Amino acid sequence: MDIPTLKALPLFKNCPDRFFQDLCATAHIQNHEKGKILIIHEDPATRFFVIQHGWVKLFRETPNGAESVIDILPSGHVFGETALFENGVYPYSAEIVETAEIISLSLSVLKLELEHNSILTTNMLKYMARQQRKQDQEIEHRTLQNASQRIGCFLLQLTGSEYKTAKKIRLPYDKTLVASRLGMKPETFSRALGKLKKSTGIRIKGKTIEIDDVQQLTSYACQMCSSQFPCRSFSRSTSLDTHR
Amino acid sequence: MDIPTLKALPLFKNCPDRFFQDLCATAHIQNHEKGKILIIHEDPATRFFVIQHGWVKLFRETPNGAESVIDILPSGHVFGETALFENGVYPYSAEIVETAEIISLSLSVLKLELEHNSILTTNMLKYMARQQRKQDQEIEHRTLQNASQRIGCFLLQLTGSEYKTAKKIRLPYDKTLVASRLGMKPETFSRALGKLKKSTGIRIKGKTIEIDDVQQLTSYACQMCSSQFPCRSFSRSTSLDTHR
Repeated sequence: MDIPTLKALPLFKNCPDRFFQDLCATAHIQNHEKGKILIIHEDPATRFFVIQHGWVKLFRETPNGAESVIDILPSGHVFGETALFENGVYPYSAEIVETAEIISLSLSVLKLELEHNSILTTNMLKYMARQQRKQDQEIEHRTLQNASQRIGCFLLQLTGSEYKTAKKIRLPYDKTLVASRLGMKPETFSRALGKLKKSTGIRIKGKTIEIDDVQQLTSYACQMCSSQFPCRSFSRSTSLDTHR
Repeated sequence: MDIPTLKALPLFKNCPDRFFQDLCATAHIQNHEKGKILIIHEDPATRFFVIQHGWVKLFRETPNGAESVIDILPSGHVFGETALFENGVYPYSAEIVETAEIISLSLSVLKLELEHNSILTTNMLKYMARQQRKQDQEIEHRTLQNASQRIGCFLLQLTGSEYKTAKKIRLPYDKTLVASRLGMKPETFSRALGKLKKSTGIRIKGKTIEIDDVQQLTSYACQMCSSQFPCRSFSRSTSLDTHR
């Protein structure tokens, strides 16, 4: 695998070449089909992962099989690395949800570097603080926003840097998965999406969403949020950033 | 103020005496009444805080005044320090909810130490990973558990190390605040508490909860959770730990 891919990750910003060489020496690159389980919650962890292409779902399950989706990550994101701070076990399971190319790397090389490289620890602290803020916001949204507003917020995140003129956006994965990412049952999602259409004038054609008036969508979705649009979590989630 | 208080915080475990001396030189100790606002979301941050006694609510507000409670912290917890990784602004507001004694300390001394002291950065990384897991679990609970199960989980956390034999526990603050900590409207909380009583046989007398059968409560509350009781977040939340 090539070092530039790793150098481009914010988590590894300004790290020394020696570290990238050590890390790359441990790299495996694999293509995976949809449905493949990469890691299992509470399993001992020896590797962490970078998504080259595709989408990966992080989740946990109750003993009776109910599933809580923690996040659904696109390319350029990292996962599995927080096992280092979790007694060496994975804090979630991970499943491929769209055909993916995944780089797996040695956790022990990362651990060793964290012990000596203050640039890396600073990057890691910033990155975890960002995760914390994102999770705080997720909890806030689940407390204050209704289901339609949460879908509206999700769509706004997808408009990316085009948000001022966005007319058409495409759902990155199917609606069932969007529903579970937002912690909704499919029937709640359908009802809430219908209400969102009526309230904001958006149009939905399969996976394509047409937004005529972004301002109307932000007024509707962001009214029950403590952050102003375009919010910090917005600008972050649209860049291909590192991730838990 | 005395250095042992700071030395006892897991966040500062094994830090050098020089650091404690520098930090203590910046300490202010103040008593505050219920209702006092200590810091405001998005305000520039110069201090962080340790709770000596009392309870502190961390929260954010929407422009129209709706409130999302992030956490309610007891003595021995730290807050405000993550402003260091948030462009120097507080990521939440903080309000005294039970008469409290609060130590305020310089953020710049902490920042300087983080740049040089790898023991402190390792402590900080572990502490943020723990926060992340706690938040993940909060999101999971809001997705999978019903309101009664979430109250049951909250009560189980309060039983502490006595959980096997716990008969009587006391709510640490009033029910309205418990409701907002759990992200529920007061009327939802009342209904859910009634249902929990019927399902598990617990009795409620003012702020005192009597639990005859802890096993029955765990069976009820923990069935829709990916962790087994006593869970890791349980053992953590019952120690006087550092905290966001």
